[in-house]
Amino acid sequence: MNRYQEPIIILVHPQLGENIGATARAMLNCGLKKLRIVKPRDGWPNSKAIRASSGAESIIHNAGVYLNSQDAVSDLNYVIACTARKRDLRKEQADMDNVINGLIDNTYNNLQCGILFGNESSGLSNDDLDFADILLSIPTNKEFTSLNLSHAVLIVCFHWMIKFQLKNRDNFIEPKKTIDQLAKKSHLSQFFDHLERDLEKGGFLFPPEKAPKMIKNLRSIFIRSNLNEQEVKTLRGVISALKRAGKSL
Amino acid sequence: MNRYQEPIIILVHPQLGENIGATARAMLNCGLKKLRIVKPRDGWPNSKAIRASSGAESIIHNAGVYLNSQDAVSDLNYVIACTARKRDLRKEQADMDNVINGLIDNTYNNLQCGILFGNESSGLSNDDLDFADILLSIPTNKEFTSLNLSHAVLIVCFHWMIKFQLKNRDNFIEPKKTIDQLAKKSHLSQFFDHLERDLEKGGFLFPPEKAPKMIKNLRSIFIRSNLNEQEVKTLRGVISALKRAGKSL
Repeated sequence: MNRYQEPIIILVHPQLGENIGATARAMLNCGLKKLRIVKPRDGWPNSKAIRASSGAESIIHNAGVYLNSQDAVSDLNYVIACTARKRDLRKEQADMDNVINGLIDNTYNNLQCGILFGNESSGLSNDDLDFADILLSIPTNKEFTSLNLSHAVLIVCFHWMIKFQLKNRDNFIEPKKTIDQLAKKSHLSQFFDHLERDLEKGGFLFPPEKAPKMIKNLRSIFIRSNLNEQEVKTLRGVISALKRAGKSL
Repeated sequence: MNRYQEPIIILVHPQLGENIGATARAMLNCGLKKLRIVKPRDGWPNSKAIRASSGAESIIHNAGVYLNSQDAVSDLNYVIACTARKRDLRKEQADMDNVINGLIDNTYNNLQCGILFGNESSGLSNDDLDFADILLSIPTNKEFTSLNLSHAVLIVCFHWMIKFQLKNRDNFIEPKKTIDQLAKKSHLSQFFDHLERDLEKGGFLFPPEKAPKMIKNLRSIFIRSNLNEQEVKTLRGVISALKRAGKSL
């Protein structure tokens, strides 16, 4: 029986089947088996992906395929986003060691974790980052930063494997009982919908061209809070209560 | 002026141009530029290698091409051989950390070092190992050990870079930390007063004996977000907007 939730690799809108296959191979080299793919450019299934997986095709066959990155993370508790670009977002950014240590702690606490990777040409969009808890920028030579997709995945998976093996071998840690469950991303998403619908009604999201940025900033405040299920419920209660407080305006 | 001799990556009898190109890209991502190729199967130059290098083609153009691995290492001082197979050879075998630490020490002592990688189907032959000082077996999942050639090179180069950057930080990208101004506690306090006054009005803080605990839990959500001044203003705007949304209730 697994005593931990294996992290899930999520490729957002990948272009080349060869890279999807090489990603599966790299994952299995590192002992990771769960792959999700958001809107692969060349459709699905993809015979080039199967060929390039060189024996890891079970990962390709079992990959989940999703329409957008929100759906792909909706049942996860903790999301890491790999991004080389500097973002105008207030999200925690950390180095590889810290990110992987946090990932392993979370998997041992039975949180379902995922790692998002953008596509070959443009990486992750700001929208893809809405539900990300932490941003990871893989260190590179600053004069040549563009990593092949499967190479980026390999670096992260390999670091996971090395640290995970060390933990298993030397220092197996029992799941902690004091840390409580982070809310599922789908419940956060429902909370955001609720909040944003009412903010729209209250004229907050104005002017309209600024609304997407305002929403992003607001969401990032709550993502940073690492809300648990109870807190999400509480905040939905807060919205309703504030509306009732406005009745007599 | 270089204070060290950059290690040289040596591919022995590689088969696919795509892998040679992806190797060059991985090397340059890690700040390594010297490539040697022993008897490439499909001849040389190789247009697929150039294409797959995705911008690292200067490494391909400057690669040295050799007839056998002995020639390719003849001017080197220290040779590491990557091999997954167990060998019946009395050669030192070490783990990644030790191998890379030794490599860096040697480059700083002005020894010219090289790292040998075998081909896609059969790896290095025993003859290729004749001049190897140390054998490195890249750790993998025991049930799926076959690494793509460029992936194997990447893992070694990446570890070299991480350890090397400790000695020479300037050439590499450091993980960025977004540190901006946290809101003054007094402004947080005004925000809390605002929120709690309206929650009281909306009947949220009920029953009264539970109100202090509810307030504590709510405040802790926002404290954990490390709000900056702008975000505190935004959240006060959110309160007002939600009240306006409730006017028509």
